[in-house]
Amino acid sequence: MKIGILGLGLIGGSLGFDLRSQGHYVLGVSRRESTCQKAMEIGSVDQASVDLSLLVSAELIFVCTPIGLIVPQIKELLPYLHKTTIITDVGSVKGPIVHSISPLWENFIGGHPMAGNTSMGIEAAQFNLFVNCPYVITPIDKTIKNNLTLLEEIVRSLGCNVYYCSPEQHDRAVSWISHLPVMVSAALIDACLNETDLEILELAQKLASSGFRDTSRVGGGNPELGVMMAQYNGQALINSLHKYRDHLDSFIKLIEEENWEVLGEKLLFNQHNRPRFL
Amino acid sequence: MKIGILGLGLIGGSLGFDLRSQGHYVLGVSRRESTCQKAMEIGSVDQASVDLSLLVSAELIFVCTPIGLIVPQIKELLPYLHKTTIITDVGSVKGPIVHSISPLWENFIGGHPMAGNTSMGIEAAQFNLFVNCPYVITPIDKTIKNNLTLLEEIVRSLGCNVYYCSPEQHDRAVSWISHLPVMVSAALIDACLNETDLEILELAQKLASSGFRDTSRVGGGNPELGVMMAQYNGQALINSLHKYRDHLDSFIKLIEEENWEVLGEKLLFNQHNRPRFL
Repeated sequence: MKIGILGLGLIGGSLGFDLRSQGHYVLGVSRRESTCQKAMEIGSVDQASVDLSLLVSAELIFVCTPIGLIVPQIKELLPYLHKTTIITDVGSVKGPIVHSISPLWENFIGGHPMAGNTSMGIEAAQFNLFVNCPYVITPIDKTIKNNLTLLEEIVRSLGCNVYYCSPEQHDRAVSWISHLPVMVSAALIDACLNETDLEILELAQKLASSGFRDTSRVGGGNPELGVMMAQYNGQALINSLHKYRDHLDSFIKLIEEENWEVLGEKLLFNQHNRPRFL
Repeated sequence: MKIGILGLGLIGGSLGFDLRSQGHYVLGVSRRESTCQKAMEIGSVDQASVDLSLLVSAELIFVCTPIGLIVPQIKELLPYLHKTTIITDVGSVKGPIVHSISPLWENFIGGHPMAGNTSMGIEAAQFNLFVNCPYVITPIDKTIKNNLTLLEEIVRSLGCNVYYCSPEQHDRAVSWISHLPVMVSAALIDACLNETDLEILELAQKLASSGFRDTSRVGGGNPELGVMMAQYNGQALINSLHKYRDHLDSFIKLIEEENWEVLGEKLLFNQHNRPRFL
């Protein structure tokens, strides 16, 4: 079929590669002419343009812009489309997007492939980025079943594991395992950097190894992405952060009370149960 | 020279491999006969025994037992030794150990190789474990200079980068970059596991990927080690935890106030400065 991709970054560009290799005809739109050129050169899309009207003939469109642009870009796009065109997005927050677009477009379905890495842009696009990744689809009551079936089929062809849930369930789940870790990790970097004894700070920087590196990784990532998570998933994130702080406080209390037995039990429980997330 | 190793786990066993390959004669002591046999079989030591008296002829002894056993085991060992024998340990906390042993043995030097991984036991021992790792040596006023020179020379021969600081400076620095991350990460696992809506919990477990995996890694590690950090480095750790909580609170406040500008600045500052720890 003819598939449109709006936003040719890591996700959009990689989708293009896989969809073309499945035999689909891929139309790509980017805000930058140079990105369009690059996407055609590397073979991620069949045709590309900075002009939204390129997508008029697409039967299905993946919106892969940064999260803050998804709703405004879809609104700009709608006037060009046939009523039957199916639109889906790949944003990492679902509630605000689904509830903004669904009233405007009955053939909209929210989605979120849990793929990607720290690389960005069309240059980072690759084949098979989505193999074995979770792909969450977030229908609502009025979502049209045939559209879901079609989207699921295409997503499965990328090698994804498909999960269904409501937009709100998605946002609460990712606030725990994706957005909360960013803030927890960011506060760690912040706290370490603010050691006022410079000899200690310098020594800490020399001695830091894999423990610090791993725990601080996501907190030292793309700042725009961190802000977007907070901005678009604020309520779920604030809820997770408050609960996290309660658990942190109970660790502090156990250490202050020198309650090694209960501290050991908690750490053992974590060690046993962490693999359920992996 | 003749070098003793008390405690034949990952660190002790790996030290044995490297020291033997440098031409030293290595005497190993473990509490378990089977570990002694294994250490000899794989060539990590020249001789091994469950009996501390094996170490009587060693000129330098590395104490590589779990941290809680370092002080009691050294106390048990002292009666067997010549007054000139140099003792050093590899414990990840230095203040309590150095201040317990120094009054009893003038030829004691505290040390801490920042090496290791999640594997444990003599089976995990390997050549070149210490290459490019920081090795902290923590002398005090009365530490004998010739002993320091000798220890530094041997530690450098393992490929380590040697740093000197006081035991207290060491403990404060590692509380930031090693012990705090464990508790921060443990509280994350704890908070996620305690989501009471089982549908959300199950979904979170299905969707968790590299962000959760990395941020939760050290909090899901060896529980005994986590307790030991808190037990032996309690004061520095409590101080770090309280400061961490203040920084966490300011992230929560920024998100609650929807202050995206300052949140973005903080995340950008982290992104720029995290590499100073790597």
